[in-house]
Amino acid sequence: MKHLLSPLDLSVDETEDLLNLASRIAKNPEKFSHCCDGKKLATLFYEPSTRTRLSFEAAMINLGGSVLGFSSADSSSASKGESVSDTIRVISCYADICAMRHPKEGAPMVAAEKSGIPVINAGDGGHQHPTQTLTDLMTIRELRGSLDNFTIGLCGDLKFGRTVHSLIRSLIRYKNVKFILISPKELRVPDYIREDVLIHNNVEFEEVERLEDVIPQLDILYMTRVQKERFFSEDEYLRMKDFYILNKEKMAAAKDNMYVLHPLPRVNEISVEIDDDPRAAYFKQVQFGVYVRMALILTLLGLDKTV
Amino acid sequence: MKHLLSPLDLSVDETEDLLNLASRIAKNPEKFSHCCDGKKLATLFYEPSTRTRLSFEAAMINLGGSVLGFSSADSSSASKGESVSDTIRVISCYADICAMRHPKEGAPMVAAEKSGIPVINAGDGGHQHPTQTLTDLMTIRELRGSLDNFTIGLCGDLKFGRTVHSLIRSLIRYKNVKFILISPKELRVPDYIREDVLIHNNVEFEEVERLEDVIPQLDILYMTRVQKERFFSEDEYLRMKDFYILNKEKMAAAKDNMYVLHPLPRVNEISVEIDDDPRAAYFKQVQFGVYVRMALILTLLGLDKTV
Amino acid sequence: MKHLLSPLDLSVDETEDLLNLASRIAKNPEKFSHCCDGKKLATLFYEPSTRTRLSFEAAMINLGGSVLGFSSADSSSASKGESVSDTIRVISCYADICAMRHPKEGAPMVAAEKSGIPVINAGDGGHQHPTQTLTDLMTIRELRGSLDNFTIGLCGDLKFGRTVHSLIRSLIRYKNVKFILISPKELRVPDYIREDVLIHNNVEFEEVERLEDVIPQLDILYMTRVQKERFFSEDEYLRMKDFYILNKEKMAAAKDNMYVLHPLPRVNEISVEIDDDPRAAYFKQVQFGVYVRMALILTLLGLDKTV
Repeated sequence: MKHLLSPLDLSVDETEDLLNLASRIAKNPEKFSHCCDGKKLATLFYEPSTRTRLSFEAAMINLGGSVLGFSSADSSSASKGESVSDTIRVISCYADICAMRHPKEGAPMVAAEKSGIPVINAGDGGHQHPTQTLTDLMTIRELRGSLDNFTIGLCGDLKFGRTVHSLIRSLIRYKNVKFILISPKELRVPDYIREDVLIHNNVEFEEVERLEDVIPQLDILYMTRVQKERFFSEDEYLRMKDFYILNKEKMAAAKDNMYVLHPLPRVNEISVEIDDDPRAAYFKQVQFGVYVRMALILTLLGLDKTV
Repeated sequence: MKHLLSPLDLSVDETEDLLNLASRIAKNPEKFSHCCDGKKLATLFYEPSTRTRLSFEAAMINLGGSVLGFSSADSSSASKGESVSDTIRVISCYADICAMRHPKEGAPMVAAEKSGIPVINAGDGGHQHPTQTLTDLMTIRELRGSLDNFTIGLCGDLKFGRTVHSLIRSLIRYKNVKFILISPKELRVPDYIREDVLIHNNVEFEEVERLEDVIPQLDILYMTRVQKERFFSEDEYLRMKDFYILNKEKMAAAKDNMYVLHPLPRVNEISVEIDDDPRAAYFKQVQFGVYVRMALILTLLGLDKTV
Repeated sequence: MKHLLSPLDLSVDETEDLLNLASRIAKNPEKFSHCCDGKKLATLFYEPSTRTRLSFEAAMINLGGSVLGFSSADSSSASKGESVSDTIRVISCYADICAMRHPKEGAPMVAAEKSGIPVINAGDGGHQHPTQTLTDLMTIRELRGSLDNFTIGLCGDLKFGRTVHSLIRSLIRYKNVKFILISPKELRVPDYIREDVLIHNNVEFEEVERLEDVIPQLDILYMTRVQKERFFSEDEYLRMKDFYILNKEKMAAAKDNMYVLHPLPRVNEISVEIDDDPRAAYFKQVQFGVYVRMALILTLLGLDKTV
C-alpha cells in the first residue's frame, strides 16, 4: 500500500514513471476511460477547495470510477468529535482510494497510518500540496520536454506560499535548474528553504526585488499572489505592488518560449490582457492537473502496469 | 459552440426541435440512457437551488453521464475572489458542459464568453431562468398538443416573478395566445412587459384582480406565489389574499381541460386538496423538466442528431 | 411499493431474507456490481450525517447505480418553506429510491405517504434509524452465526440512545436473547422500553451500573457514548465515568469470543488500545452496514429475486 503525503514521497524515478503515464493519458484520455470501472474515490475535504476537489473528481470519473465524499467540515462527522483515524477506517469500508484536504498539518499522515486504502494529501494547512507540485512538474515537462537545464523565476509571496516551497524542493532534484526568487524583502523565502534546501545543496539561485529586472533570463515564470496585508506598511505596498503584476509590457521583455505558470486562483497579479498570449500556460496547467491525478490514482491503485 | 443564456436564444424552430426531442425522450427514456456515456456535467450553483440542481443532475445521469460541481458559494473558490471568467476556464478542463446558477444577473453570460464548454444559465438573479421556461413550454405542449390557440391565466406576483416574464416573452412567438394577467394592482406586470412586449407586439391581453372572475375562460392557469411583504398594507393583504389561492371551489368553475402549472416551490397558493385533481399538472411539470434538460444537454453537446 | 421507516416494518422472515441477501453480497460483492445499472438513489439529508450518507452512497455505487441529493438543509429548498410532501413528489421525478435523514420525528413517514418511490428512513430525530439496527443485526449474525441464544450487554447512555432502543425491540423477536443493561442510574432505559417491551414480553434482563461486574457473561457488548452533560453532577460523573470506558483491562475479563460493537462515532468510551483486538468488531460493523444497505436497496426496488 502506498500513499502520497509529500511530493518527495516519490523518488525521481517514480516521478518519472508517473509523469510518463500522465503524458500518455494526455495524448489519449479515451483509452483510459474504463481503467477504474467499479472503483470509488472518497474526497474528504475538511476545508473547501473547489478547484482541487473537482480536479480529483474529474480525474476519477475520466477513469470510469465514481466519487463520494464531503466538501466541507460542516457537513461531516468531524463536528461530532470523531478522530481522523476513525474516519479513515470508516471510509476504508466505503471507497478504494481517498483524497484528503485538512486545515491541520499532518492530518493526512495520521490518517494514512490507520487507513485500509491509499491516502492522497490534497493539501494540509500551509504544509504540503503534492498534487499541485506534480501538476507543476508535468506542466514544465510537457511545455519544455524536460525537467533539466532551465531557469525558473518564482515571483510573489515566497514566504508563505507552500506551492513555491514544494516546487523548489522537487526541482532541485533535477540537473542544472537555476532559481531566481522575485519578491519583496518581507516575503523572501524562509531560511529553511534558502539555507537548508538551496545553499545546502549547492543550488544556483538569486534573490531580486523586481520582476522586470530578470524576466528576460527566464524559461519559466511561476507567479503567485502577493497580499496587501503582508506588507509592512501601506507606503511600502504602494511602492512595490506593480513589481509583481505581470502585464503585456513585462511580457514583451520575456523570451518567446518563456511559459507563465500560476497555481490559481489569481486575483490581479496576472493581467487578463495576457490570457491569450501563447506563453500563458496557467489554464493548460489546470488540464495537466487532471491528467497527473489520473496517473496518480492509477499508480496508487496498482493499475499503472496494466494500461 | 452554443450556450443557453436566455429562453429567446433559441428561435421558434430551434425550440420546436428541442421540444420534439424532449417529447421523444419522454416516450422512451431508456433509449437515451447511454447517449452521454463518459460525458461530465458541472453544476456550478453559487446559490442553492435543490430542485433545479437535482433536475440537471437527474437529466445527465439519465443520459449515462456523470456530474460534479458545488451546491453553494461557501464550498466554492468564489470566496477566494476568483472571477467567474477564470472559474469557467478551469471548469472547462473538468467537464463537457455546465449549468450555472448565480445571484448576479449576467454572470452566466460573462462565463460563456470565456468558456470552452457550453454554459446553461440555471438562473441568474431576478433575470432569466431559461430551462424553467422550456419546461413550461414543454408542459403546455404535451398537455395541449400545441403552443398555439389558447388562453393562459398568469396569477400571483407578476411584478417580480422572472418565470412569468420569460414565459410571456416566449409565448408571444406563438399564434393566437391570449394572456389574462391576474394580480393585485401593486404586483401587476411592469411596463417593460406590458408596453414593450404585449402592446408593442399587438398581443391580446387583459389585466384583472380576481382569479374567480376569469377562471372559466382559461385553458392554462399558471400560478405563482404572492408574498405578504409585497402588499402595501396588512389591510390590503387581508382583503386580497384569498383571490390568489387556488382551491376546490375555484377549480369547480374551471374547464375540464384547464391545466394548472406552477414553477414550485409552492407555499399555500395552491391548496393541497386539489393535488389529486387530474388537471393539477405541477408535478408532471417537474418530470417534463427532466426530459427537457436531457434534450437540451444532447442539443448543446451536438448529440441531438445522433439519436 | 414498500418503504423502510422502522426496523419493525420488516417481519422476522423478511429480516431473515434481507440478512441472507446481505450475507451473499458480503461473500461476493462483485457479483452484484451491475444490479442497479441506470438506477438513481436520492440522499435527502436535512441534517448532516457523513457516515450514514456515504454508506448509502457506497451501497448504491457498488450496485452500479448513481447518487444525487443534498447533505444539509442549507443547500436544499427546505429553506424556501417547501413541505416534505412536495419535496418527495419532486424527488420522485428524479430518482428511483431515496434515503431521508430529518431532524423531525416522523418526517420520513409523511414523505412516504406521497412518495412515488421507496423511502428509507436514514434517521429521524431521536426516533428511528432502521438501517443502523439492520447493520447491528447483520453484524451479530455474521459474527455468531445466529440471532438466537446469546447474552448481550448494552452499555452507556440507554436513556437517549435510539440505536439501543431499536436494537432491543428487534432482538426480543429472537429466541433466548438475554439483555444486560449497563448504565448510570440516570441513564437507564426509559419505562416504555423496560415495562412495555422487556417486562411485557417476559424477556430476561438485568440492570447494572458497572461494566466490569458483568463483562465475563457477555457474548456481545454493544457500547455507546456517555455524555458528561447528562449526569446529575460533576461529582457523579467523576465517580462513574470509568465504569463505561472499555479498555484492555476490562477486555481481559471478557470471553475470547465476545464481540464489541459500537454505532460510531466514538469519542473515548472505547480506548484505541483495543482497536486491534480481534474481538473489536466496530469497524467490521461499518462494512456490514454497506452490505445490508445494498441488500435493502435491492429489496425495496424489487430486484432481490433477480440476483
